[in-house]
Order: sequence, then C-alpha cells, then structure tokens
Amino acid sequence: MLNAINLTDKLALFDEQWAPKVIAEMNDYQFKLAKLQGDFVWHRHHDTDEVFIVLDGELRIDFRDSSVYISSGEMYVVSKGVEHKPFADTEVKVLIVEPRGVVNTGDATNDQTAQNDVWV
Amino acid sequence: MLNAINLTDKLALFDEQWAPKVIAEMNDYQFKLAKLQGDFVWHRHHDTDEVFIVLDGELRIDFRDSSVYISSGEMYVVSKGVEHKPFADTEVKVLIVEPRGVVNTGDATNDQTAQNDVWV
Repeated sequence: MLNAINLTDKLALFDEQWAPKVIAEMNDYQFKLAKLQGDFVWHRHHDTDEVFIVLDGELRIDFRDSSVYISSGEMYVVSKGVEHKPFADTEVKVLIVEPRGVVNTGDATNDQTAQNDVWV
Repeated sequence: MLNAINLTDKLALFDEQWAPKVIAEMNDYQFKLAKLQGDFVWHRHHDTDEVFIVLDGELRIDFRDSSVYISSGEMYVVSKGVEHKPFADTEVKVLIVEPRGVVNTGDATNDQTAQNDVWV
C-alpha cells in the first residue's frame, strides 16, 4: 500500500516562516509548503509564473498597482516577471508550485532568502 | 483589486464527472478541477507525471501491483509512464496539475476521454 502526502501532517513538521519545504516533485516542478507572516521583500521571478494555494489563513500579495487577497481554499497565479510582495497579518499556510530551482526572493536577496530543496 | 480563484466556487459551476475543467495556467501547466465517481479506465501518461490533490472525499488510485488512498487534504504524484486507474466509491473532488495538452485517459481512449482546455 502506498502513502499519500498529507498536507496537515507535513505542515506540523516545521515552524520556520518564509522557508519553503518541498513535499513533492512533478517533472521539473516542486510543490512546497510555507508558513508566512509579516512582510516579505519586493521581488520578481524573471523566468516563471508562480502559484500560491492558501491552505489556512489569508495571504495578501501586493503588486505595484494593485493587490490580491487569497483566503483558505483559494489560489492565485503570479505571472512571470511581475514584481510582487507577499504579506500576512497573521500566519498563513500556503502550498507553492513552481519549477525546481526557483529562489523564494527571486531577483532580490536578503535575510529572507531561503535555502532551496529542503524537504519535509 | 484582483480576484483569487476560489476552488469551492469553481466546483459549483459544473456537475459532470470525469470531465476536468481548467481553472488556472502556470507556464505550460494547467490546474484542473474534476469530480470523479466510480471506475476510470486503466491508462498511463507516457510523457509526464500527474498530480492529484483531493479537496473533498476519498480517491483510490490502483496500480498494477498496489493502491494509494488519497483523502481530502492529501496529494499524490503518479509517475510518468506508470499504468493507473482512479476509483471513487462516492464522488470525490480533485485538483489535478499537469502539462497543458494532457488527455485524461492518457494512452487509452473510450467514452470517458474528455475534451481538453474547457475552462470554468
């Protein structure tokens, strides 16, 4: 008997915020869980779209000219090359889908830049 | 103000089973909602892995030598080339992630083969 990947169980395995953890790979894409709270850095991903699926809480993503609120049970695709800044008032739990090798802070580098390919 | 994609709202827009509906694209990948019940056809996708995220209910995927049960809040990656057959005793609602152009019945064709690129 094979085992499915339980998102709640995987989320219980780490507390760090802004540090995505890989839980699955599909071709050259990764599914990553992350816990986000507070303000992230403005950044963009020049080579790829990026998907956020909110599992618990509410995520706001600011763009230079608008914002989107993503609640539990909702998803959003940030288009390639578009500058954005995630924000969460209280901790939000998200599932991120993007190609292997994408750095969380994109073209920006700061103390929120996370190590890639960390699995839980 | 931009709008997120609400999975429950999108699921309410169709009743058909085994007929995936596209709700988002990320690069050359699609996110598709589907309602599944009963037995599907044995098939494989020669060129791609396939992700199932269960939103409501329980999905069983049979392989030739094993099975996996995927409940609400769980996901599973069916590897490229591996023969499989989804099954659901009662209706299960799933989010499927796979490259644009993948046919639901893979290398098999029958009356469950669905039209591609149908958006809700």
